[in-house]
Amino acid sequence: MIDTPNLVDQYCHGVLRTELGLGTFEAHLGAQLGSRPDGSAARPAAGTTFFDTQTGFAVRRWCPPLLGLEPHCPPARYLARRRELGAAEAGRRLLRASGISTYLVDTGHPGDLTPPAELGAAGAAEVHEIVRLESLAEQVADTSGTVEALLADLAEAVHGAAAGAVAFASSAFASARAPEPPGPGEVRGAAGRWLAGRPAGGRLTDPVLLRHLLWIAVTAGRPLQLHTGDPAALNGFAAATAGLGTDLVLLHRYPYHRAAAHLTGLHPHVYADLGPVLAHTGARAAAVLAEVLERAPFGKLLFSSGARGLPELHVVAAGSFRAALTRVLGEWVMDGAWSRTDAQRVAAMIAAGNARRVYRLG
Amino acid sequence: MIDTPNLVDQYCHGVLRTELGLGTFEAHLGAQLGSRPDGSAARPAAGTTFFDTQTGFAVRRWCPPLLGLEPHCPPARYLARRRELGAAEAGRRLLRASGISTYLVDTGHPGDLTPPAELGAAGAAEVHEIVRLESLAEQVADTSGTVEALLADLAEAVHGAAAGAVAFASSAFASARAPEPPGPGEVRGAAGRWLAGRPAGGRLTDPVLLRHLLWIAVTAGRPLQLHTGDPAALNGFAAATAGLGTDLVLLHRYPYHRAAAHLTGLHPHVYADLGPVLAHTGARAAAVLAEVLERAPFGKLLFSSGARGLPELHVVAAGSFRAALTRVLGEWVMDGAWSRTDAQRVAAMIAAGNARRVYRLG
Amino acid sequence: MIDTPNLVDQYCHGVLRTELGLGTFEAHLGAQLGSRPDGSAARPAAGTTFFDTQTGFAVRRWCPPLLGLEPHCPPARYLARRRELGAAEAGRRLLRASGISTYLVDTGHPGDLTPPAELGAAGAAEVHEIVRLESLAEQVADTSGTVEALLADLAEAVHGAAAGAVAFASSAFASARAPEPPGPGEVRGAAGRWLAGRPAGGRLTDPVLLRHLLWIAVTAGRPLQLHTGDPAALNGFAAATAGLGTDLVLLHRYPYHRAAAHLTGLHPHVYADLGPVLAHTGARAAAVLAEVLERAPFGKLLFSSGARGLPELHVVAAGSFRAALTRVLGEWVMDGAWSRTDAQRVAAMIAAGNARRVYRLG
Repeated sequence: MIDTPNLVDQYCHGVLRTELGLGTFEAHLGAQLGSRPDGSAARPAAGTTFFDTQTGFAVRRWCPPLLGLEPHCPPARYLARRRELGAAEAGRRLLRASGISTYLVDTGHPGDLTPPAELGAAGAAEVHEIVRLESLAEQVADTSGTVEALLADLAEAVHGAAAGAVAFASSAFASARAPEPPGPGEVRGAAGRWLAGRPAGGRLTDPVLLRHLLWIAVTAGRPLQLHTGDPAALNGFAAATAGLGTDLVLLHRYPYHRAAAHLTGLHPHVYADLGPVLAHTGARAAAVLAEVLERAPFGKLLFSSGARGLPELHVVAAGSFRAALTRVLGEWVMDGAWSRTDAQRVAAMIAAGNARRVYRLG
Repeated sequence: MIDTPNLVDQYCHGVLRTELGLGTFEAHLGAQLGSRPDGSAARPAAGTTFFDTQTGFAVRRWCPPLLGLEPHCPPARYLARRRELGAAEAGRRLLRASGISTYLVDTGHPGDLTPPAELGAAGAAEVHEIVRLESLAEQVADTSGTVEALLADLAEAVHGAAAGAVAFASSAFASARAPEPPGPGEVRGAAGRWLAGRPAGGRLTDPVLLRHLLWIAVTAGRPLQLHTGDPAALNGFAAATAGLGTDLVLLHRYPYHRAAAHLTGLHPHVYADLGPVLAHTGARAAAVLAEVLERAPFGKLLFSSGARGLPELHVVAAGSFRAALTRVLGEWVMDGAWSRTDAQRVAAMIAAGNARRVYRLG
Repeated sequence: MIDTPNLVDQYCHGVLRTELGLGTFEAHLGAQLGSRPDGSAARPAAGTTFFDTQTGFAVRRWCPPLLGLEPHCPPARYLARRRELGAAEAGRRLLRASGISTYLVDTGHPGDLTPPAELGAAGAAEVHEIVRLESLAEQVADTSGTVEALLADLAEAVHGAAAGAVAFASSAFASARAPEPPGPGEVRGAAGRWLAGRPAGGRLTDPVLLRHLLWIAVTAGRPLQLHTGDPAALNGFAAATAGLGTDLVLLHRYPYHRAAAHLTGLHPHVYADLGPVLAHTGARAAAVLAEVLERAPFGKLLFSSGARGLPELHVVAAGSFRAALTRVLGEWVMDGAWSRTDAQRVAAMIAAGNARRVYRLG
């Protein structure tokens, strides 16, 4: 048996405070399947339900027992029990049973989600904030009237945020693939166009400004978490940022987990997150974890839940991860491929130790 | 034990009527390995044979016992027995033992293959026709003298075919990636060039006309089966056709099965076929099926054989699929990851239920 | 139990002659993780070590017992024992225990590595040379003063080398993707620019000259080993060289092993190497081998170690490969998916027979 220590969840969001019906709960399951090209949420086809997915089945495996029900009970039965307890009490029971002792929380997602302190209190866990670069820039733009002010305020905001946050996160790699920082004239032009055309609260999608923002963050001394599709798009940026002292953590999308793991072996400052691939593959989590462990140096992998909205997703991620790690490493020990000591040590690294080192959690 | 009901084979072709020697049989095995860039059939290297493939080994596993021989007997022995029975009787025995009760048959492939009714009679099965858009357009072009006539006849032919067929199929995504319908001027220009330069019986490969044809089919109210390589090429078309009421079924090529399955979770009207990846991986079918089940909603997956020419290929696909489904879902039930009830329900959906719903088979 | 005969290692390098400390040994483990965009060697992150990789664990599994130690003993203990024996004696013991009886050695890599004869003597094995096209061209350029001389000497050198070598190898597909041979004017221009701008010993990276070199090699009648990333880049070159009598062997990079295996089924003259994917996935070698065996005709796969510098890498590759082959084929026999006779025959083909046929090793 391989033990896993208390987990550090290196990337997640808060949970919803409201009571949830079947439809809303299902919509949050669907959001785990991935992002559509236009950013909108996935919907189930007529005659189908997102409960009929690995994530849905995993929720029904791991969560009902924590609320006093049988595993795999029907979704309606589970949600009735959840409402009976109330969202707050149910969340408290779920989070405290997850085995996660530290949450790193991305606070840049819209929606009425618990802030870090409230998530930590509910889960009896340590919390740290991850600052989403795009959200920070949008807040800055709300109060900056000129290009000069915007650019100065952006730099100040990023460096200021670095004092209180453990990491930055960005989805810029969806649109900004050029590895080098943009020139000052290019940045000024883009900033002017953004300010001029921006409605109140408008989102930042300009690729030049996103790139500029990434490069400010690279100088701010905190690890930078990057949402990517195919991690090959990041190879150039990884090469350009080598040796600058800032670690890059790939929050990669399924099915690119092998390519992301491979990349961590090539660049000393590149790490890979396990969340989006393990948490939502349910019965297949052990198989996917084994693939990630093929080529990544074991010091470069970090557990996360990637959970958003439902505490059930924190539970499922942690449960699937622990079961997968125990099974995969346990089999390798049984085969004589790994020693038990090494397996135990690697389990502790991926579960918590690597994150403690990269984010200097002490 | 997970049971699978009688299968709906949602994409296949007819079988050859002639007696087959070793060389012809082997050529049909090779055709299962995939299409070469120029569309020509694969040939074995000197000193090798296509019997030494997973498909070849799977034929030797599943088929000899159905004709009264030992599994894995030599190919020459098997083919001798097949000729002894005659192609018709051998085909009848093979198809009836396959466990497939409904065939959806693409009739647009050249070659002397049994038409749907004959395949159904041989297999004692229900049959439905899939109309290949390219073949339909080529037939229309044979009798349309002007651009105006061609375009009017194309639309009429597609809508007319929709009355008798359960689905359309197309390989247009090999060449036509732009998601939007082409403009009328563009279409007229392409039609004119095609008519002017077309020899009798000439194939349709013009990307503008192919795109035009796809968009006519989108309005005809039947599911559209799309042969694709990397399904990422289809993301834009999927977004452009969302909400129009026409389902897209990805007939994806190996090794893109995970990406295809993932896509079905993002778009309500996108489905994935299991045929080309499961039927020709033999001893690996369970492993590949497990990968497909990682991220696809279970209501979005459809069994098919993809078989063409040899009834052995229908048998191998069905046998490999049933064995794989039983093994994969059975293990998940044993592990406690899935309930037995859910496993049985999902097996029935993928084997037949999803296809019955999507193609309205009643 | 499936037996594997003595192995033909169809692609490797020599080993270092010097005594190795922990840091140098670790650097050679890191080199197995892959090439960075600029060609430089990977370095471990602070707080991590390349011993904590599948390759590192596999070395500690397979090698210490060959030098009289316990498996999985600490790296420092192993290296102390290695120095105690001396690099030559340790290398001799390791290589002779590997089960490799024939080495095909790429001699074009810089560094003080044992030449083929010395490797063969150490390992009591047969050796053959693989000529690296780029190195050959660079040697020719060192002594050719004019464009005319360079081009004539290149052709002569390649055809001359074909007399003594069993194969050519090239990394040209990193930069030269156009499938067709370049025109004479284009080649002359590129040759002139290279000669004019080339420092003494300068590397060949011009894509036109690389392409020219590949096409000379295609006419020289020896198999051509091509280092590739995504083998899809090679589809056009494979089509253009079909029927010319020269085999192409894909030395593909992780994680493209399924795509490479698939390609071997489409082109009679295309083969896939197993080395870079199996040798460095350690406890996962059986799983990766099983993936390669999904679609490749079994006559198209070739074992190699891809080892460079450390005889431990030859040992790990051979040990992982034999264990993987025995496990994967053995399970298929147990399941009834393959016959024992077929499994034994396929094992012998991949381990040695295919390489003997392709390289005409007699």
